Amino acid sequence: MLAAEDFIAELRALAPRYWHDHPFHLRLHAGDLSREELQLWAANRWYYQRSLPQKDAAILANCPLPQVRRYWMERIVYHDGSRDGEGGAENWLRMAEAVGLDRAEVLDERHVLPGVRFAVDAYVNFARTKPWVESIASGLTEMFSPGLMRRRLADMRENYPWIGEEGFAYFVSRLTVIAGEGKSTLDIVVEHARTREQQQACVAALAFKCDVLQAILDAVDYHS
Amino acid sequence: MLAAEDFIAELRALAPRYWHDHPFHLRLHAGDLSREELQLWAANRWYYQRSLPQKDAAILANCPLPQVRRYWMERIVYHDGSRDGEGGAENWLRMAEAVGLDRAEVLDERHVLPGVRFAVDAYVNFARTKPWVESIASGLTEMFSPGLMRRRLADMRENYPWIGEEGFAYFVSRLTVIAGEGKSTLDIVVEHARTREQQQACVAALAFKCDVLQAILDAVDYHS
Repeated sequence: MLAAEDFIAELRALAPRYWHDHPFHLRLHAGDLSREELQLWAANRWYYQRSLPQKDAAILANCPLPQVRRYWMERIVYHDGSRDGEGGAENWLRMAEAVGLDRAEVLDERHVLPGVRFAVDAYVNFARTKPWVESIASGLTEMFSPGLMRRRLADMRENYPWIGEEGFAYFVSRLTVIAGEGKSTLDIVVEHARTREQQQACVAALAFKCDVLQAILDAVDYHS
Repeated sequence: MLAAEDFIAELRALAPRYWHDHPFHLRLHAGDLSREELQLWAANRWYYQRSLPQKDAAILANCPLPQVRRYWMERIVYHDGSRDGEGGAENWLRMAEAVGLDRAEVLDERHVLPGVRFAVDAYVNFARTKPWVESIASGLTEMFSPGLMRRRLADMRENYPWIGEEGFAYFVSRLTVIAGEGKSTLDIVVEHARTREQQQACVAALAFKCDVLQAILDAVDYHS
């Protein structure tokens, strides 16, 4: 079994596999996307966003530790909000509307590409069927995202000035949440991956999650 | 499809199948249980109590509706509490201690009978694999319990005066919660069971849950 810092280094070494430099993201940041491409992106990313509470609940369902469940439940609350019209999912719908989509055409998922659906469903299915520590480890892509989120917000505001500020609520709110999440989630994974095999399974889970994210953008990019 | 009131009547008609008059419960209420029998009961019921948050999270994981998830999540919070030392599960541990068990021997589940484990696991597995409306319907045994809970509290206080009042925290807190839960849960089931087949599946789910509860007490009674 690796010492905590070596295990963490192994997880962090997956950073290049994160989707920050996917060709589609590079075009997004550079301001090269058309309104239609931004719509396709927002409508497909919606399918990911709307699946997260169910993914997180599947982790709860597999976790026998009340203290971990208490912590993890905050994510469901974050995404679903405390009432209608609040929460991360709602904020993503605002982004979709800000790039010109009707809420109805997002919610009925007519624009969701099969490749995106398969990738996201694979992620939810992972959480349903794998040990909860691995599922939690799969969420550690958060460790890689704060810098990206800050840049995205700046680049999108600059390069797509026609997108109203209300469209950025999702990124603005994520910025304050993510940094803390990545740290505490890492603590849980380090504490509960107690054999070398479990550590390796957690590294594999994080690699798998990177693949899920990449596959989402592959499909969107291919159909742009 | 049945009108709401006829569907509700069909659900309520399962009341006789509830575990209120199981021979073991009758002995419990009559004051006929020995300290050892109460311990076996408390230690086995613990396995049910501790499985409930995972059962409820499995329902969340299958439910795509944020408004239902928001409502249902309150149950997980109820069982797990907001911090260590709070919540329904903790209150059950206090009952176990009040009848003379060590917390450790409850938590390590050494007294849990195979029949109890199979019954409870079947309930959790039901929630994992069945449509969420059916899983929610399975929880409607709550409709049958407020009167029973009140009687249990009165009968146990009277017939087992050696059980300290702190042991009754679970029943006391459930009393205030259950009445409301039964009503709102019924509303959800009535609203979302939209075909006769779904209504029938919900009735079957509630019958199944009654069987789970009966099987728990069968095993406890057999080994008392």
